[in-house]
Amino acid sequence: MKLVPLGDRVVLKQLEAEETTKSGIVLPGQAQEKPQQAEVIAVGPGGVVEGKEVKMEVAVGNKVIYSKYAGTEVKLDGEEYIIVKQSDILAIVE
Amino acid sequence: MKLVPLGDRVVLKQLEAEETTKSGIVLPGQAQEKPQQAEVIAVGPGGVVEGKEVKMEVAVGNKVIYSKYAGTEVKLDGEEYIIVKQSDILAIVE
Amino acid sequence: MKLVPLGDRVVLKQLEAEETTKSGIVLPGQAQEKPQQAEVIAVGPGGVVEGKEVKMEVAVGNKVIYSKYAGTEVKLDGEEYIIVKQSDILAIVE
Amino acid sequence: MKLVPLGDRVVLKQLEAEETTKSGIVLPGQAQEKPQQAEVIAVGPGGVVEGKEVKMEVAVGNKVIYSKYAGTEVKLDGEEYIIVKQSDILAIVE
Amino acid sequence: MKLVPLGDRVVLKQLEAEETTKSGIVLPGQAQEKPQQAEVIAVGPGGVVEGKEVKMEVAVGNKVIYSKYAGTEVKLDGEEYIIVKQSDILAIVE
Amino acid sequence: MKLVPLGDRVVLKQLEAEETTKSGIVLPGQAQEKPQQAEVIAVGPGGVVEGKEVKMEVAVGNKVIYSKYAGTEVKLDGEEYIIVKQSDILAIVE
Amino acid sequence: MKLVPLGDRVVLKQLEAEETTKSGIVLPGQAQEKPQQAEVIAVGPGGVVEGKEVKMEVAVGNKVIYSKYAGTEVKLDGEEYIIVKQSDILAIVE
Repeated sequence: MKLVPLGDRVVLKQLEAEETTKSGIVLPGQAQEKPQQAEVIAVGPGGVVEGKEVKMEVAVGNKVIYSKYAGTEVKLDGEEYIIVKQSDILAIVE
Repeated sequence: MKLVPLGDRVVLKQLEAEETTKSGIVLPGQAQEKPQQAEVIAVGPGGVVEGKEVKMEVAVGNKVIYSKYAGTEVKLDGEEYIIVKQSDILAIVE
Repeated sequence: MKLVPLGDRVVLKQLEAEETTKSGIVLPGQAQEKPQQAEVIAVGPGGVVEGKEVKMEVAVGNKVIYSKYAGTEVKLDGEEYIIVKQSDILAIVE
Repeated sequence: MKLVPLGDRVVLKQLEAEETTKSGIVLPGQAQEKPQQAEVIAVGPGGVVEGKEVKMEVAVGNKVIYSKYAGTEVKLDGEEYIIVKQSDILAIVE
Repeated sequence: MKLVPLGDRVVLKQLEAEETTKSGIVLPGQAQEKPQQAEVIAVGPGGVVEGKEVKMEVAVGNKVIYSKYAGTEVKLDGEEYIIVKQSDILAIVE
Repeated sequence: MKLVPLGDRVVLKQLEAEETTKSGIVLPGQAQEKPQQAEVIAVGPGGVVEGKEVKMEVAVGNKVIYSKYAGTEVKLDGEEYIIVKQSDILAIVE
Repeated sequence: MKLVPLGDRVVLKQLEAEETTKSGIVLPGQAQEKPQQAEVIAVGPGGVVEGKEVKMEVAVGNKVIYSKYAGTEVKLDGEEYIIVKQSDILAIVE
């Protein structure tokens, strides 16, 4: 099964956070703030969304930063995804 | 009796959740969060809705993910339906 | 006396709920949730409403489902009506 | 002195409620809910209001139903009026 | 010193309320509700305000009724004024 | 260092209030309400701001009245400024 | 790794505050209010954003003042950034 987003929606999969603190200690996922980095899994077709022309600017595989409180969490086949509008994606990480 | 949605509205019927946890235990419906998967039962004609042109992109029979807090629950002939605007449908599940 | 709605407004009369539970017990009106089914009594002319072109899509006599918290209750000659905007009507019941 | 409303504003005068309950008892004004029926006293010129073309559809002398929480109460020469926008008028009573 | 309002703003000076109750008792200013009548002191040029064309319809010297909670109180040379947008003026009193 | 405002923003410097009460007592700055008079220090270029054409109508050196709760306080080189949108300026004081 | 902002977004890096009080005492960063000065690190392409044409007016290296409550804090490679919309940037400091 796969998710096919509508309009300007984008399906994201959160990236595991495995970050080293400045002092060099690696924090496991639980002890950290929810990371906002995610990978783009699927991209809607864009077009006219709520009366406004939207051109999609992200592509499958992009690593992105998205807005902290945006999006809807969705579970499919035991995997968790986040569906956001493209306007909730702040930047691509290259 | 059947529901004929107006404008950009879509009639949904929630799908029964019968999901297996990672550890393999099957949870009955009650013990789970409200699932957001639904089947499309009827689709409005679209057209100009609140001054904006809306083209309908879902079809009867599609399985869809919809926004958690959207929609109005409706009971007809003992069956429960949810009526949402198409913009509250996030993705089609294929 | 009769109500002639302005713009995109529609006058509704709530339908009496006399529904049978799955187990076959008939609930009197008081013991039920407020039903959202209503009959269309009068329909405004539509046209440009708050700067947007509105085409009326319901007709007198239609049975409709309307949004739970919408509308203004009005009493005229001892009868109760609800006046809603057409956009608060979700579907026609056929 | 008289009130000349601007834009899409309408000056209303609330009608005295003298309604008979179903059981035939006449309730004096105090014991009733605030009635929403009013007579149109003066009508603004309409035209472009906040960037939108508004055509006035009510006329002096019309009896109207207006939205419960709308309008500003105004006292002039000891008389009380309500000034509403035309879009707060739901229906004309004929 | 004088106030020259920008855009669709209007400078008002509240009128002293000296109203007689129905029973004939004259209430001094303190014992009354804040009156909403004011005199127009200065009128902005109108034109395009926040993307919308606004034509000024009040003139210096007009007595007007304005919306109860609108406007900013301003003190200049010991005099108090209220600056409102023209859309907060409900009616001219003639 | 100087502040160069963007779009329809205006940099203001609050004027010291040194006002005499009606009874003739001069109140020092602390004992008074925050004055809303300010001098214009810098003016943005205007142009299309959030999709709307804005023409700047204030000039450096103007004394203006601005909306009480508007603007962002900024400190630069030990001086305090307020940056507002032009639409938060109510009137020029001449 | 670097951040490539989308649409009208701008990546900022907050400037260290090392300000001298009027009395000449230098306050260390902790004892001060959060400074609102930042350096522009990356600028989105602009273009049509939510249906409105946006022209980018800041450039990499600019020192800017931004709105106190705007933006999303982001951590990348141990560095902290703030991503804001250009409309949350109030002024350039020259």
